[in-house]
Amino acid sequence: MRDIDDDIPGSKENLKKLYPHTGKAYLLGVTGLPGAGKSTLVDQLVMVYRARGLSVGLVLIDPTSPFSGGAILGDRVRMQRHFTDPGVFIRSLATRGHLGGLSTSTNDIINVMDAMGKDIIIIETVGVGQDETEIVSTAHTTIVVLAPGMGDEIQAIKAGVFEVGDIFVINKANREGADRTVQDIETMLNMKRYADNEFHPQVIKTEAIYGNGVEELFSAIDEHRLFLEESNTLLNKYRERARYEFLELLKESLISSVVAAKGGEETWENLFDDIAKRRRDPYTEVELIIDEFLKNSLARPPKN
Amino acid sequence: MRDIDDDIPGSKENLKKLYPHTGKAYLLGVTGLPGAGKSTLVDQLVMVYRARGLSVGLVLIDPTSPFSGGAILGDRVRMQRHFTDPGVFIRSLATRGHLGGLSTSTNDIINVMDAMGKDIIIIETVGVGQDETEIVSTAHTTIVVLAPGMGDEIQAIKAGVFEVGDIFVINKANREGADRTVQDIETMLNMKRYADNEFHPQVIKTEAIYGNGVEELFSAIDEHRLFLEESNTLLNKYRERARYEFLELLKESLISSVVAAKGGEETWENLFDDIAKRRRDPYTEVELIIDEFLKNSLARPPKN
Repeated sequence: MRDIDDDIPGSKENLKKLYPHTGKAYLLGVTGLPGAGKSTLVDQLVMVYRARGLSVGLVLIDPTSPFSGGAILGDRVRMQRHFTDPGVFIRSLATRGHLGGLSTSTNDIINVMDAMGKDIIIIETVGVGQDETEIVSTAHTTIVVLAPGMGDEIQAIKAGVFEVGDIFVINKANREGADRTVQDIETMLNMKRYADNEFHPQVIKTEAIYGNGVEELFSAIDEHRLFLEESNTLLNKYRERARYEFLELLKESLISSVVAAKGGEETWENLFDDIAKRRRDPYTEVELIIDEFLKNSLARPPKN
Repeated sequence: MRDIDDDIPGSKENLKKLYPHTGKAYLLGVTGLPGAGKSTLVDQLVMVYRARGLSVGLVLIDPTSPFSGGAILGDRVRMQRHFTDPGVFIRSLATRGHLGGLSTSTNDIINVMDAMGKDIIIIETVGVGQDETEIVSTAHTTIVVLAPGMGDEIQAIKAGVFEVGDIFVINKANREGADRTVQDIETMLNMKRYADNEFHPQVIKTEAIYGNGVEELFSAIDEHRLFLEESNTLLNKYRERARYEFLELLKESLISSVVAAKGGEETWENLFDDIAKRRRDPYTEVELIIDEFLKNSLARPPKN
């Protein structure tokens, strides 16, 4: 088990060298409502893959709290049986800074694990928001974990995770209302018309804490993978990820470069003060910066 | 009730003109776990403010699903008693595009409502992720809504919402375990040392569906506002918001301008294909673009 929490100096250069060796791992995204038992399920999935001799990379997107003094240890404690297994590489990612970076750091660590030769990379999110949903939805197979009695089905949809699922897991299936939840999800899924090259998501019941249903989940993942390969849509997934990875990196690099070129955020304190006091407005100020930085380049015809 | 779902042409020019008239509204952020009853609570808060003759703007950050055919109507249905009230302006914001925009559109609509003269602007998020947490945390008072039996307290912390709360509401307080949840939250809050100019968050029990505890919540909000005014920290809040608003807008404008200057995303299809096939790597490609766009500007000394 290795767990690096700081950036490696020169890591961008390393990432460039690694990149040609990536693209072999299968990416599994796991999301769902807090309390549905995602971590326990992921823990069980890791065991199923390990039992088949496959190596696993695990990326936990895990916001931290100043109250808890940094990292949340919950997942790590739960995952500790894998800590001494050299076939499992675990990396927790904390909250991004306000200049962005959560998705870029996730992509970076996925690339490192991929180049290391991990067969399966599981990306588990703790939050259920825009960023997190986007990150897991660029995996090859995305699993949405729900539990019975977590509020009516509209809550799941509202959390924005419904449309990204290839497989829906109703965990804690021994609880009252499990069959009802399965039915609700299936009804929603059946409302959509599926094209021939579109996968009809599966709904699976599990009791991750006892390991029940985990083999079925493993088979469903394999089935989805097979579908992607046979329908020739796996390449589309790679292309979508390429687009996402590139644009996220471009966004982050642009803002960091412009902020750095202007002498860092500190040099803007007067501007922030003026905006706060309504002496200047952010719309005009941003326009001025865009003009300053892009005017030379904008004059040129686009090339590619 | 007006509800505009499309961008107004030339809105950036309008926003520039509006900006000097903003900064008067009090901003209330409401977040919390799905199923905690946020919408019902917000509905009750609107009534309390309206009963005091205050006008209210309501921004619902509400991811949409292709399965439900666009907007989720749940909140709107629940809010319908306010639809005919000219003192309440409701605006739902859907999912951002992949070039960003959720926080920028939220900021834009806050500015419009503020300039319109709304006394209170409530920003309610449905998701609990990075973006959503960031958006509500730039409000003047941030309310985190939880309910008993929603999973152990670590879940709330893990959702990344714990550190942003000025007021914690335990809604559905008639449910078993409410006092336990209150205690847990208070224990967590007491673990932190508070400086003199720092607010010790309050914990309040409500049963929003019956209107119980909503007056207490109203008072707690007022108390926090008074604290911000008396401790001279309200200006800090304005400055934080100015910084956030400016940097989010800059991020979005930079990526849009660069993408447009290069002829749009379509011109990059070959690049995405090459990255997908590992013929090129995103790190080098982004560096090339940054160099192209910023080299002229980077040579100049920073000015401000």
